[in-house]
Amino acid sequence: MSGAAPHTTRIRVRGYHLDLYGHVNNARYLEFLEEARWGFIESARGLEWWHDQGLGFVVASITINYRKPAGLGTDLEIRSAVARLGGRSAVIHQDVVDTGSGELVADADVTFVVVSLETGRPVALAGELRAALGGKDAP
Amino acid sequence: MSGAAPHTTRIRVRGYHLDLYGHVNNARYLEFLEEARWGFIESARGLEWWHDQGLGFVVASITINYRKPAGLGTDLEIRSAVARLGGRSAVIHQDVVDTGSGELVADADVTFVVVSLETGRPVALAGELRAALGGKDAP
Amino acid sequence: MSGAAPHTTRIRVRGYHLDLYGHVNNARYLEFLEEARWGFIESARGLEWWHDQGLGFVVASITINYRKPAGLGTDLEIRSAVARLGGRSAVIHQDVVDTGSGELVADADVTFVVVSLETGRPVALAGELRAALGGKDAP
Amino acid sequence: MSGAAPHTTRIRVRGYHLDLYGHVNNARYLEFLEEARWGFIESARGLEWWHDQGLGFVVASITINYRKPAGLGTDLEIRSAVARLGGRSAVIHQDVVDTGSGELVADADVTFVVVSLETGRPVALAGELRAALGGKDAP
Repeated sequence: MSGAAPHTTRIRVRGYHLDLYGHVNNARYLEFLEEARWGFIESARGLEWWHDQGLGFVVASITINYRKPAGLGTDLEIRSAVARLGGRSAVIHQDVVDTGSGELVADADVTFVVVSLETGRPVALAGELRAALGGKDAP
Repeated sequence: MSGAAPHTTRIRVRGYHLDLYGHVNNARYLEFLEEARWGFIESARGLEWWHDQGLGFVVASITINYRKPAGLGTDLEIRSAVARLGGRSAVIHQDVVDTGSGELVADADVTFVVVSLETGRPVALAGELRAALGGKDAP
Repeated sequence: MSGAAPHTTRIRVRGYHLDLYGHVNNARYLEFLEEARWGFIESARGLEWWHDQGLGFVVASITINYRKPAGLGTDLEIRSAVARLGGRSAVIHQDVVDTGSGELVADADVTFVVVSLETGRPVALAGELRAALGGKDAP
Repeated sequence: MSGAAPHTTRIRVRGYHLDLYGHVNNARYLEFLEEARWGFIESARGLEWWHDQGLGFVVASITINYRKPAGLGTDLEIRSAVARLGGRSAVIHQDVVDTGSGELVADADVTFVVVSLETGRPVALAGELRAALGGKDAP
């Protein structure tokens, strides 16, 4: 997806997403980001492919900036794209945008590794796996 | 635990538990009830015993009544006791009490079966398992 | 909506919905049901109408039956319809169906009252409010 | 709290905290961190003081590193301390430690501002407020 149009996921803010100030709760955004990453994975090769390869995503770190509060009924669009593709780890950048105002509500960099589900150990982001993440073959 | 004093778990209401009205969200109460049931299980035989027996709890149904709203900083006590012990299923009754006012905030009946983790199928609530749930041997 | 086709909401099961058995967690279903009820409300008069009337929903009780586990990638459809419309309270029945197998995953009866956001007190389910809930004028 | 012993909060990992790999879910850690920050606030001046001052915390950004997975029954200790105290914003550093193994499970830097609940705008971290956050008077 690197260099390509980002994958988009839409979520409407509901009552159970909100905190006592009427704004989407900090932790809930991480679920929104995860929802978008599942959509991103499906749009790349699909869950089947990952399952057949015996591979899984493991998040190593997340940096999230909360820019604007989002309230009840707000339509959010999460735009996800691979921002950096290293030899062993990669970064997905995710923007959360209020589609009504066009304003950036939050943005995040999610660093992840891909692990073999058999060994639990990270694998090299090379070959077909690298291509699945939108990269060329060589790191 | 049938006939015995109920097991108690304490939870203080925090900001992330609340909805936009400043009250604990409906779904969050189910997490409070589950938290209390883990404490209940630990106080009975402990997780080790359940693990060694290859047994797990599966919730079949929940009826929960929301009696009073609970807001930020409220200290809740969840009181859990086996209310009915059948041959194949059992019911844990759980009261959620505001320890400040003494008022009942919510109460629930949780019907569960015990399954063999190997087969995934319910087992008879007999013998040592029945005793672990606070009952006499014969159903 | 009583007597009419039920409102439907679709949710795909994601990793963050699951528990350690790989099944949707008990508490998470209550969020799915709430998601569906927000969709139901929007399809009836819309949030604006409720807001303009100064009215809000308060859930009084929920009975939920967990029929079948649902795992990663399952497409769920939640079908919601007013099942009983009393003078002061009403019941929404909600079925959660696995759209792949057609099987019922869970079903719930959600009893609610409508409160004045100004007073916090329940109002009579009459007149335009009753019509908004799919009923005829007289209880 | 800067320079003082960190505030500690203990959380035992339960089934509803876990994802399908049997590890605490990414988003759930943010709730653990928030739980610990509420405890931190209480231990400083207490919620009453913040309420009386008409002040609230708003999180501006979070960087969290996931170091080791934590599974069912793990006892976690969250250690929270003000790491940086600026004129308008501050950073709380939070370590999540497995008390059994002593290993670091996750750590996070949480940047926050303090807002006037009346205006919704950030206030200067000076005077008594600065002292409440463990700092000397002058920034």
